[in-house]
Amino acid sequence: MEIKAMAIDIDGTLTDRRRSLNCSAVEALRKLKVPVVLATGNISCFARAAAKLIGVSDIIICENGGVVRFEYDGEDIVLGDKKKCYRALRALEKEFDVVLLDDSYRKAEICLRRTFRKEDARKILEGYGVRLIDSGFAYHIIDAEVSKGKALEYIAEKIGISPENFAAIGDSENDVELFDVAGIGIAVANAHLKLKKVADIVTSKPNGDGVVEALEFLGLI
Amino acid sequence: MEIKAMAIDIDGTLTDRRRSLNCSAVEALRKLKVPVVLATGNISCFARAAAKLIGVSDIIICENGGVVRFEYDGEDIVLGDKKKCYRALRALEKEFDVVLLDDSYRKAEICLRRTFRKEDARKILEGYGVRLIDSGFAYHIIDAEVSKGKALEYIAEKIGISPENFAAIGDSENDVELFDVAGIGIAVANAHLKLKKVADIVTSKPNGDGVVEALEFLGLI
Repeated sequence: MEIKAMAIDIDGTLTDRRRSLNCSAVEALRKLKVPVVLATGNISCFARAAAKLIGVSDIIICENGGVVRFEYDGEDIVLGDKKKCYRALRALEKEFDVVLLDDSYRKAEICLRRTFRKEDARKILEGYGVRLIDSGFAYHIIDAEVSKGKALEYIAEKIGISPENFAAIGDSENDVELFDVAGIGIAVANAHLKLKKVADIVTSKPNGDGVVEALEFLGLI
Repeated sequence: MEIKAMAIDIDGTLTDRRRSLNCSAVEALRKLKVPVVLATGNISCFARAAAKLIGVSDIIICENGGVVRFEYDGEDIVLGDKKKCYRALRALEKEFDVVLLDDSYRKAEICLRRTFRKEDARKILEGYGVRLIDSGFAYHIIDAEVSKGKALEYIAEKIGISPENFAAIGDSENDVELFDVAGIGIAVANAHLKLKKVADIVTSKPNGDGVVEALEFLGLI
């Protein structure tokens, strides 16, 4: 399989737990000759800043696939239905105290502090057409129709690279669908067990050091 | 003078022309024992991402002093009057084709592509109570009542550190007022001549390498 592009998660993959960038990974990414698509649960405004500061392509997947963007000064393309997420939120609010994060910036999903047990919340949300995912940093109520994987397919078609020619690197549950569509999926050492189970490779090093290890393994640096 | 905090510009200072972070500067900032306030013409959403990814304090000055923020999940505090800027924009639009940048995200100022001569624009804007500043990356129409310097005074009071105990590092015209209030102002080698004129020190190296040089000179690393 020829690798023609990369899709890489940000928080916990390119950053540590405190969300600081791993500089070795940043410098490794700058050496790549293939485009790098950042794929995150965070908002487009965060992801476009990250892409610019890291120095990779301006093509980003945000809000767990609910939003994609192709240019720094371009427009957000909204793939998820936030209204569905609000209906689900109303149900959750009856059971838990919820704290919304960045809500005015989120266009396709709802992000919540991790103040309740996700297993309990998932039972409540059945039938609402949404998923509750845990990025490790926050919970996200997302339209069940969107995922990082579907967003990658959308981007792949637009830029004319097959999803199978993407290598993906991630650490969280929300990267599972990304690995499903990418040609190769690499989980960093700190990754969630669910992601490690579907990964083709698990690095020995965590976070950004794992990204460097992965890029070396792939022969890209 | 004891340095108790730093105020540092982002674009052209911590980044190169392409706006990629200088990793040596990032790693140097992480070693500091004093808080680092990022001060930029960019929007709060960009600046808070930069602060998080670089790994410095979440206290930020954005929109050239028009907006400040103390916490990542806190609120933007708007210090500038955007309505004034819109009135000035109407006058500019009669003379030039203007292209607004990030307008939906900007709360205190208007950012424009550099598609006209700033000297011509400044004549038109006289009497509107605004300033046109050139960050080197874009033009900004800002409320004449705000500046990075005034925002630094606002922050300094809130966190209980005198502005004179701040060291500032920058590269652009919009850093002049920051240098006016900070105890020491350091221009990186690529800085605008106007900034070099008011700087206490000009580094021999440009951009992030200049930042590292400055921190070494100050004995902070």
